[in-house]
Amino acid sequence: MPRQEAQLTPSRGHGALGPRRAVPAASRPSAGAERFLLTMLHRLGGAPPVRLQLWDGFAAGPDQAHFTIEILDRGALYQLLRSPNIDFGELYSAGRLRVHGDLSDMLVQVYRHIQRARDTWPAWVTTLWRDPARHGADVDGARHNIQRHYDLGNAFYRQWLDTAAMQYTCAYYDTPDMTLEQAQLAKLEHVCRKLRLRPGQEVIEAGCGWGGLARYMARHHGVRVRAFNISREQIAWARRQAGREGLADKVEYIEDDYRNIAGRCDAFVSVGMLEHVGPANYGALAEVVRRTLKPDGLGLIHTIGRNRPAAVNGWIEKRIFPGSHVPSITELMRLFEAGGFSVLDVENLRLHYARTLEHWRERYLAVRDQVRADYDDNFARAWDLYLAGARAGFVAGTMQLFQVVFAPAESNSLPHSRRDIYA
Amino acid sequence: MPRQEAQLTPSRGHGALGPRRAVPAASRPSAGAERFLLTMLHRLGGAPPVRLQLWDGFAAGPDQAHFTIEILDRGALYQLLRSPNIDFGELYSAGRLRVHGDLSDMLVQVYRHIQRARDTWPAWVTTLWRDPARHGADVDGARHNIQRHYDLGNAFYRQWLDTAAMQYTCAYYDTPDMTLEQAQLAKLEHVCRKLRLRPGQEVIEAGCGWGGLARYMARHHGVRVRAFNISREQIAWARRQAGREGLADKVEYIEDDYRNIAGRCDAFVSVGMLEHVGPANYGALAEVVRRTLKPDGLGLIHTIGRNRPAAVNGWIEKRIFPGSHVPSITELMRLFEAGGFSVLDVENLRLHYARTLEHWRERYLAVRDQVRADYDDNFARAWDLYLAGARAGFVAGTMQLFQVVFAPAESNSLPHSRRDIYA
Repeated sequence: MPRQEAQLTPSRGHGALGPRRAVPAASRPSAGAERFLLTMLHRLGGAPPVRLQLWDGFAAGPDQAHFTIEILDRGALYQLLRSPNIDFGELYSAGRLRVHGDLSDMLVQVYRHIQRARDTWPAWVTTLWRDPARHGADVDGARHNIQRHYDLGNAFYRQWLDTAAMQYTCAYYDTPDMTLEQAQLAKLEHVCRKLRLRPGQEVIEAGCGWGGLARYMARHHGVRVRAFNISREQIAWARRQAGREGLADKVEYIEDDYRNIAGRCDAFVSVGMLEHVGPANYGALAEVVRRTLKPDGLGLIHTIGRNRPAAVNGWIEKRIFPGSHVPSITELMRLFEAGGFSVLDVENLRLHYARTLEHWRERYLAVRDQVRADYDDNFARAWDLYLAGARAGFVAGTMQLFQVVFAPAESNSLPHSRRDIYA
Repeated sequence: MPRQEAQLTPSRGHGALGPRRAVPAASRPSAGAERFLLTMLHRLGGAPPVRLQLWDGFAAGPDQAHFTIEILDRGALYQLLRSPNIDFGELYSAGRLRVHGDLSDMLVQVYRHIQRARDTWPAWVTTLWRDPARHGADVDGARHNIQRHYDLGNAFYRQWLDTAAMQYTCAYYDTPDMTLEQAQLAKLEHVCRKLRLRPGQEVIEAGCGWGGLARYMARHHGVRVRAFNISREQIAWARRQAGREGLADKVEYIEDDYRNIAGRCDAFVSVGMLEHVGPANYGALAEVVRRTLKPDGLGLIHTIGRNRPAAVNGWIEKRIFPGSHVPSITELMRLFEAGGFSVLDVENLRLHYARTLEHWRERYLAVRDQVRADYDDNFARAWDLYLAGARAGFVAGTMQLFQVVFAPAESNSLPHSRRDIYA
């Protein structure tokens, strides 16, 4: 997609005509109807402090905004009007939209304002812009979805994830000034403490990424871990790493779907997998935990969540995480209800995920030229938008991060309190 | 109701005839059909290690059980068969059932076995024995319900609640060996820490009991509290106590319904009121919190809960807590979803409530003769059953105790972690 070099020029605000300037060959000046639609779009978005500017300089929104979204051609405007959830990302990736000001901070403003405005939308707008509800994937579908994202290449992720444990989930900043490496190790320790691991115990992990948690548990808590994942690249890397660290006899990495997990365990843990499971499969996951977790065992699920049910953003689902679903806290609790579990402890680490994503994006932006060379411009912009947008969701509160500790409903082998986690 | 003095005699177990003995005038020997029904009742209850024994010595269940339920007359058997949820309590209170072995431990066994067995019941049994769903009370109904329970007389409750803060909700045993007094004060401190109270803040409390939390907050955390309750007796006592403690200018007790709460606050707290609200009114409660809690405030709701939705036991609803409803964790989360809140922290203190109830019951049994003298035999037995049964519910896991910390969804003034609670 050719980069369009329209200039950023000041406008005189709502409905005013922008100053005349040289018209790019690809675009005639905006028509009255287009200017009207742009102004409507800004209003439907809850009038955020963000300027929307057309290819010819016409703009809606405040004159003095910190943020400007520049729409570089006529087709882009119509795509944005028709399906902003999907096409903002498509156009940004293609370079047909440009953002001036910090991309993530701009999205925080947009998310906050849309959040408030959407209750006032006419029904046809809600319908037009709605992200479709999606269902959980079967075993083959899940493999396809996971490989699309996680098999992009370990080298890609290694460039911007932490070097300590290769964690691609929310870190835990035990103190606010921690580095990403420290905070990812603190997350692993936090999870282990919540599970009250004791040496010699058996752990099952569902969705193990590059295997960092499993290795940490084995090394620092003396447990044996069977860790499941359907990403071939991740599993291969995890096995090699366990070998290098001399943990191959303590940690077994198994390339298989969570639905095929068998055996028994003292602790069942899943960090960042539930987002790929889909609510239609929560019963199946609950059943797996039910049959594997010993009567006096503890489980922990760590997942992105929401305050209210909503579909995953259409562009994220299309380009980044096919088949993903982010449950509301109520949907999430239904999983434990279905499994006959008692919820013992829920912790919301939303702002820790915002910080994690800031750290990731800083590193990502530092290696962006390399990403552009390895993939292409479109890919490099898409991943920046994804990281910036996810951080914005956690800052704006449209996304949450829940860690849930649970036990079989009949168990009285419960931690006395949570004091030991912080000892 | 006259006390029947049937003797406890051994039987030869399932379906066997008990030894012949003198038949009380009121009861002919049990008929074959009655013996069959008794055996069925034991089986439908999941065959718990509890003997069910009739007035003539016939028994179902194991010979060597630690627990025996003695059914002292024919009418009692039929009542129990027809509506065990309501009539076990009615008959026990009336002295027409007697329990040998610890009442609460017996109920733990019964609850655990019924919990597993009920999924296998034929539909007609489920229907026959179902507790009716109940709806939330309006303002007048709520006042009536609350006064039935809480206006029994402050003197009654003072005999067996803690002397430190007159708390009629779950204590927090920061260490397992705490006394009831220590654990109730630890609960108050735990709640204050979760709310991150700072001197000078304004707190609203919905459902304040005898006002112990409000006084604790004012004294130890330097906040001003407006505390609401519709129990006249409790409010009167709370005001007098605040005066005695020199806190009358810091704590205002207001005799009014939660729906009439106005003003703004930095912290909204409700400990043990939600059980009386009813799910139909959760939206109204959420709206009250929404309009009173400042944008950077925190809220805490402490409530009895469940793993799965179910009605309150019919007898408890009839005799002890009219209009009560114990929400499942999913129902509870819907309240926060409806209010536009972010759930930050959920802690389940189920076994702390079991311990609290053990402490209450020990004290209650020590003053039971006085209770009998002040009220009557029926009342004294009913309250023993209520305390024993509630403790059994928390031990068996049919009941949970949730403390939920929440914030307005837009707020980023969130505690960094939970470490400060345990500092």
